[in-house]
Amino acid sequence: MHKLVLIRHGESVWNLENRFTGWTDIDLSEKGIVEAKEAGRLLKEENFVFDIAYTSYLKRAIKTLFLTLEEMDLLWIPVHKTWQLNERHYGALQGLSKEATALKYGEEQVHLWRRSFDVLPPALTKEDGRYPRNDVKYRDVPDQYIPLTESLKETIVRVEEYWLREIIPQLEAGMKIIIAAHGNSLRALVKYLDHMTDEEVLDLNIPTGTPLVYSLDDNFKPIEKYYLGSEHRTEKKIEKVADPGKIME
Amino acid sequence: MHKLVLIRHGESVWNLENRFTGWTDIDLSEKGIVEAKEAGRLLKEENFVFDIAYTSYLKRAIKTLFLTLEEMDLLWIPVHKTWQLNERHYGALQGLSKEATALKYGEEQVHLWRRSFDVLPPALTKEDGRYPRNDVKYRDVPDQYIPLTESLKETIVRVEEYWLREIIPQLEAGMKIIIAAHGNSLRALVKYLDHMTDEEVLDLNIPTGTPLVYSLDDNFKPIEKYYLGSEHRTEKKIEKVADPGKIME
Repeated sequence: MHKLVLIRHGESVWNLENRFTGWTDIDLSEKGIVEAKEAGRLLKEENFVFDIAYTSYLKRAIKTLFLTLEEMDLLWIPVHKTWQLNERHYGALQGLSKEATALKYGEEQVHLWRRSFDVLPPALTKEDGRYPRNDVKYRDVPDQYIPLTESLKETIVRVEEYWLREIIPQLEAGMKIIIAAHGNSLRALVKYLDHMTDEEVLDLNIPTGTPLVYSLDDNFKPIEKYYLGSEHRTEKKIEKVADPGKIME
Repeated sequence: MHKLVLIRHGESVWNLENRFTGWTDIDLSEKGIVEAKEAGRLLKEENFVFDIAYTSYLKRAIKTLFLTLEEMDLLWIPVHKTWQLNERHYGALQGLSKEATALKYGEEQVHLWRRSFDVLPPALTKEDGRYPRNDVKYRDVPDQYIPLTESLKETIVRVEEYWLREIIPQLEAGMKIIIAAHGNSLRALVKYLDHMTDEEVLDLNIPTGTPLVYSLDDNFKPIEKYYLGSEHRTEKKIEKVADPGKIME
């Protein structure tokens, strides 16, 4: 049996300001820090232990992982960071507020960009300061993988590629794994594990800072799946995030 | 030219209480946290950038590194953790205060254990709760490398082995490296780089939380070596640590 825990980063400063974040490297808010520590305490209370951790290149996920592992007294385990677990790239929407975007493009269009499978938000130009090629973090990423914008579909492709290449072999080797990532990169993993259709994944909303626990059989089929934490608390969080207007990625 | 920065972890809770620490996994004190952040700010001000980081399995070094990298906006770089960069193992002295040890063994003996090259502190027994074999962190370390006590000489052997095997090839590949570690594991590296004799290394005292910058030629011979920070501040720190009674490792 394989053990896997997914955790979406705690609230970021831009979640709070309701701005499209994507690959913008925004820090956790004070509440986000509290959420991450609480996740660590919950996992420790339930005697979870991990052998390896994975996270993205973005500090809101890296810090969530660090704070979680710190509470569990597991700071010493190997942590692998990859751009492939980054949030979906939101193209030219990154940095815009929900209100500004709705004003510019209309509410319906904004909803479509956020909740469709293969519709692309407006792309960055290569001259845009937000183009990831200009960020030292991505200097080793080949040009063809550097996004100007991304659909959920494209995010899923790069996440799955990493999952199959790097994470599956570690699960097969018996490693207990925690992955700290983002709303859309975690949707990719849950879609894969739960065999969701392209339509089903659109309704999937993962709450922030709440460990999602999987027990998988030898074929990586879920035997058990649950959110850790008091039912009341977790349900409130899922409810909140189920309204796609509430949290911007 | 190769670029390397060494940093000794900030003050720990046991530094404050003047207790032998060694492999005991003691957290940073509030002052230690401030020191680590200040080191990061200094490095950022001076436009340092790193490609890879190394640290020990002990949280006081891991957190020092995290806080330093956070200030530099470099949380995304790969961090390699290893028991081989751990502090010297102080055997049965671990956990004892300077006063208790002096009372039990005499001041002169304590000084000898701390400031000699190959004298071993009293060993742990394998039944001792402090024996590292009982700590999940070291489960992958072969029995012959798990110490019951260590002389500085033995610490140097394991640090140099890791340096030659893991770090040198990365420097040769052009990587700019930061290593966050401990008083005695860093003495091992400085001894190697500065070609110090066994006697000379005994007088080497590295201040906490103060980046030690090396520029090395192609044969890893130092071209330049200095402590980062205001001269006054750094000199005060070196002076403080030069008195071996002041900071317990």
